[in-house]
Amino acid sequence: MQVETEKSDEMTISRVRIENEAGAEAMGKPIGYYVTLEVPRLKERDPVLAEEVSKNMAEELKNMIELPEDATILVIGLGNWNVTPDSLGPKVISRLIITRHLMEMMPDKYSTKNGIRPICALAPGVLGITGIETGEIIRGLVEKIRPKLIIAIDALAARSMERISTTIQISDTGVYPGSGIGNRRMGITEETMGVKIVAIGVPTVVDAATMANDTLDMLIGQFTRQARPGSEFYRMLQELDKEEKYRLIHEVLSPFVGQLVVTPKEIDSLIDNTARTLAGGLNLALHPGISYEEVSTFLQ
Amino acid sequence: MQVETEKSDEMTISRVRIENEAGAEAMGKPIGYYVTLEVPRLKERDPVLAEEVSKNMAEELKNMIELPEDATILVIGLGNWNVTPDSLGPKVISRLIITRHLMEMMPDKYSTKNGIRPICALAPGVLGITGIETGEIIRGLVEKIRPKLIIAIDALAARSMERISTTIQISDTGVYPGSGIGNRRMGITEETMGVKIVAIGVPTVVDAATMANDTLDMLIGQFTRQARPGSEFYRMLQELDKEEKYRLIHEVLSPFVGQLVVTPKEIDSLIDNTARTLAGGLNLALHPGISYEEVSTFLQ
Amino acid sequence: MQVETEKSDEMTISRVRIENEAGAEAMGKPIGYYVTLEVPRLKERDPVLAEEVSKNMAEELKNMIELPEDATILVIGLGNWNVTPDSLGPKVISRLIITRHLMEMMPDKYSTKNGIRPICALAPGVLGITGIETGEIIRGLVEKIRPKLIIAIDALAARSMERISTTIQISDTGVYPGSGIGNRRMGITEETMGVKIVAIGVPTVVDAATMANDTLDMLIGQFTRQARPGSEFYRMLQELDKEEKYRLIHEVLSPFVGQLVVTPKEIDSLIDNTARTLAGGLNLALHPGISYEEVSTFLQ
Amino acid sequence: MQVETEKSDEMTISRVRIENEAGAEAMGKPIGYYVTLEVPRLKERDPVLAEEVSKNMAEELKNMIELPEDATILVIGLGNWNVTPDSLGPKVISRLIITRHLMEMMPDKYSTKNGIRPICALAPGVLGITGIETGEIIRGLVEKIRPKLIIAIDALAARSMERISTTIQISDTGVYPGSGIGNRRMGITEETMGVKIVAIGVPTVVDAATMANDTLDMLIGQFTRQARPGSEFYRMLQELDKEEKYRLIHEVLSPFVGQLVVTPKEIDSLIDNTARTLAGGLNLALHPGISYEEVSTFLQ
Repeated sequence: MQVETEKSDEMTISRVRIENEAGAEAMGKPIGYYVTLEVPRLKERDPVLAEEVSKNMAEELKNMIELPEDATILVIGLGNWNVTPDSLGPKVISRLIITRHLMEMMPDKYSTKNGIRPICALAPGVLGITGIETGEIIRGLVEKIRPKLIIAIDALAARSMERISTTIQISDTGVYPGSGIGNRRMGITEETMGVKIVAIGVPTVVDAATMANDTLDMLIGQFTRQARPGSEFYRMLQELDKEEKYRLIHEVLSPFVGQLVVTPKEIDSLIDNTARTLAGGLNLALHPGISYEEVSTFLQ
Repeated sequence: MQVETEKSDEMTISRVRIENEAGAEAMGKPIGYYVTLEVPRLKERDPVLAEEVSKNMAEELKNMIELPEDATILVIGLGNWNVTPDSLGPKVISRLIITRHLMEMMPDKYSTKNGIRPICALAPGVLGITGIETGEIIRGLVEKIRPKLIIAIDALAARSMERISTTIQISDTGVYPGSGIGNRRMGITEETMGVKIVAIGVPTVVDAATMANDTLDMLIGQFTRQARPGSEFYRMLQELDKEEKYRLIHEVLSPFVGQLVVTPKEIDSLIDNTARTLAGGLNLALHPGISYEEVSTFLQ
Repeated sequence: MQVETEKSDEMTISRVRIENEAGAEAMGKPIGYYVTLEVPRLKERDPVLAEEVSKNMAEELKNMIELPEDATILVIGLGNWNVTPDSLGPKVISRLIITRHLMEMMPDKYSTKNGIRPICALAPGVLGITGIETGEIIRGLVEKIRPKLIIAIDALAARSMERISTTIQISDTGVYPGSGIGNRRMGITEETMGVKIVAIGVPTVVDAATMANDTLDMLIGQFTRQARPGSEFYRMLQELDKEEKYRLIHEVLSPFVGQLVVTPKEIDSLIDNTARTLAGGLNLALHPGISYEEVSTFLQ
Repeated sequence: MQVETEKSDEMTISRVRIENEAGAEAMGKPIGYYVTLEVPRLKERDPVLAEEVSKNMAEELKNMIELPEDATILVIGLGNWNVTPDSLGPKVISRLIITRHLMEMMPDKYSTKNGIRPICALAPGVLGITGIETGEIIRGLVEKIRPKLIIAIDALAARSMERISTTIQISDTGVYPGSGIGNRRMGITEETMGVKIVAIGVPTVVDAATMANDTLDMLIGQFTRQARPGSEFYRMLQELDKEEKYRLIHEVLSPFVGQLVVTPKEIDSLIDNTARTLAGGLNLALHPGISYEEVSTFLQ
């Protein structure tokens, strides 16, 4: 396993390559390459920061996408546009510079010579909206247009409160079912699609049980510091098994779990801001001939 | 050719069956079955009228769809959701009762025994948004899920001002390129899709040249009534060739043609109202076991 | 203090009249009349239930509004339309039957004789959007148009998870600052406005600290049942002072408090459904001459 | 009357000062100062052009607004947010940097020393939505917060097809009833409001009769060039009185007039682009201490 970390004022980029089953087991993740951009101020509307993040994200993407310049890429915006925290994928798609048809229709103007790559995109919706597995829709499309790569954008459920809208997670391992906010059962992976996948995710919510769990942990930390070592309470807190505790919380919260989500108050504008930054990074990575200034007109 | 007309207070339903090439040439339309509901007050928000139109539309659709109860139907909402007059198709889709996945997951609750049919739907977007021919997206999906019928909903450009939002046009001949507001080049027809098509369209705009032409015709009518028979002016008006006139109008309007459209002022609410009425008719036709009252909760 | 409760299958209506300072202190609320409709299935899209709730709400409102038929009423939709859980007020306003101008312009058609009352409405926005205290905007308007009553609609922060989108709270005591999701500092009360106020609120979120507190309480309940009476842990749990506990939670959550809110996952559609039900109740209460069927066309 | 014109590649700025009744009569406009920015490519999404237009517009505004730095300005976004071509005003308002409350609450951070001016804003809606004359709402607010200036933004009906979304019209004469798309009867003028007004308008539609008239004029031009001088037809064309012709068109179009509008096909995105450019200009003019880069983050 290789781990690499790069830090700047506003951003920490970590790159992890899990190379074998041992590493996969140790990390609890499939074999693959994982890049995480941690940007504590990601959710703020700061154009200077947005540009910096987009440019860094573009560099990371370029390193992952090793394709000839004329290879068609299909970008998929996963998620439900009617549910604000799940609408990140479709909102990124709508800000991409789509060129596949233009390169066919106007090959003189739109060409790899001008640093433009054939890009197409779809926001397929979710099972509840279409009645069709998202994977089936994508697979059907892939068989028709034969892209060389799929990039899938998705809103994620965070594993802790701090991660909401502060990290961009990129990997080449596909999108696994149940990792998103909605329930998507068929994986969007190289095995199911027959083409390489790059997945880009940003946590936008945390489920209610995770949040209660985090809070309880913080409380226990506080209590533990105050409790007399050796006391029964101290012992109980120490002994509270991590999984047992989470199970208990799930039990008491069961009428609400899956129903309630914890989101930042300003989730509507936050999703918009994040979508702009991701679309900026994608446009730069996919079309090396288009400058950030030009890209920015598509982000509004 | 068979023609049938049925009239009530609020509605005229005409059914035309073009049976052979001679009829097709005479009508300037392909061989097929055409139903038109003319409803002068269609654009108004009148719930009693909406119910009546939905129910009549459902009857017409049922007569066209001769399929076993468990045959899967794919409904396609054509058009661009970002362009109000072209957003009719996607807005209908979002109000449909989607059941294909429920019938697979909960066959006891959702079944043909309860008058529910497996329905799935997609709003694929337009070429400028996806970079992919709409026909390619649908064809890929059809090959995966093998529906027995495609129903395609589309906003149309009217051939005259009076038709805007007053007629619902249903046919079994597919959607031909260029008939919509946007430019879609690959036909969605039985030939290209390998499955029967029912197309439902409502005119929502008229192009600027058509409107100018209509106006001029009305003016000429007025002038002609006033002009002295035998005068040069009268003669010129009579001689103004129809195609020549339209060509002339196109010429003087050329900087604007394709750019300007004529729409009702209240197009936003009109599209919503029309989408509700169409979705009502579709839901009733597709799920015979669901009452209008139940259907109406999905229309909001 | 008078308390009255009425129960049916789907709904519990309670009416509380706090008549003096003693009662106010006991209840922790100002002197006034409070009606609460508890509807556990309020958030569901059930048209039969929605009609029943609207009609019951209308009856309660009519009892509170004792005004001549031609008295003008101003309805205010508080909250921020850009923040989904805070957008309830503006979304109700947009579904009201507005008549004040019609009764002036077309007195024959729109009149109290036909059971229509002069209604006007405004969604003033929030301080962050306008730079003006909401109270100032309303006060200025009141001085111009001199309504006989203000009805203010607002989204509330719930005091417990169960209340989210399950209760409609009506009172004649005005809207007190800080009770909503946003921070509105100047009260909309009879004192500040010079005219009677009826406030209608529905809890749409719960703040993260409240949710953590509720969870902890449920956990403590569970622990207490399991702990050996007499043990130190049992004692500690018993002794955990309610306010202390909440303070502690606030402390550990402080980086997130005010930032994170807990909402139902499907908050977007839930706000729409609730707005329709409230608008239905208001339209029925305000215009006795308009039937529910007519009202329902304005709710879509 | 003074007239001044300034031309650059992308823009023509004209400044007209009508100084007396004679000039007013000659121009068919009230005494006042009129600035027009003609930008043929205004509707395109070009960030370089948008910046140039915003900066030029800001300079023109600064010359019209001669106020101390700490004078409060109220910006009013006229129009109906539910009708796309009439939603320009509200869409500009939502992109303004609102500071009046911040300067009161955090005077150290937000102050005239930092080049920030107290700005507040309201989008009051239209008569059909509120039941209240827009002028009454504004007048009530003005009496409460006593601004030193009102800036009113409005979408206009163009007098010719070429002007749609190509000109920004600024004047100090107030907004006159009926000049907009909707019907607003009470003028927003210095007389009615008791405070100076700057009005900013952009034509976004042309009514159907105007468009038919323009087309007919172009056709007549064409015919005239072809007609034999001395012929009856030539004479009739020459004699067709301008007002008579317009009246005739109105007559034949009467079932549609006021119902149909002519708009660019891509009106939705065009209104967004124009709103961004206007908001950019306003933010620069109102807050001299905020750079264009900072301003641009509010425009998205």
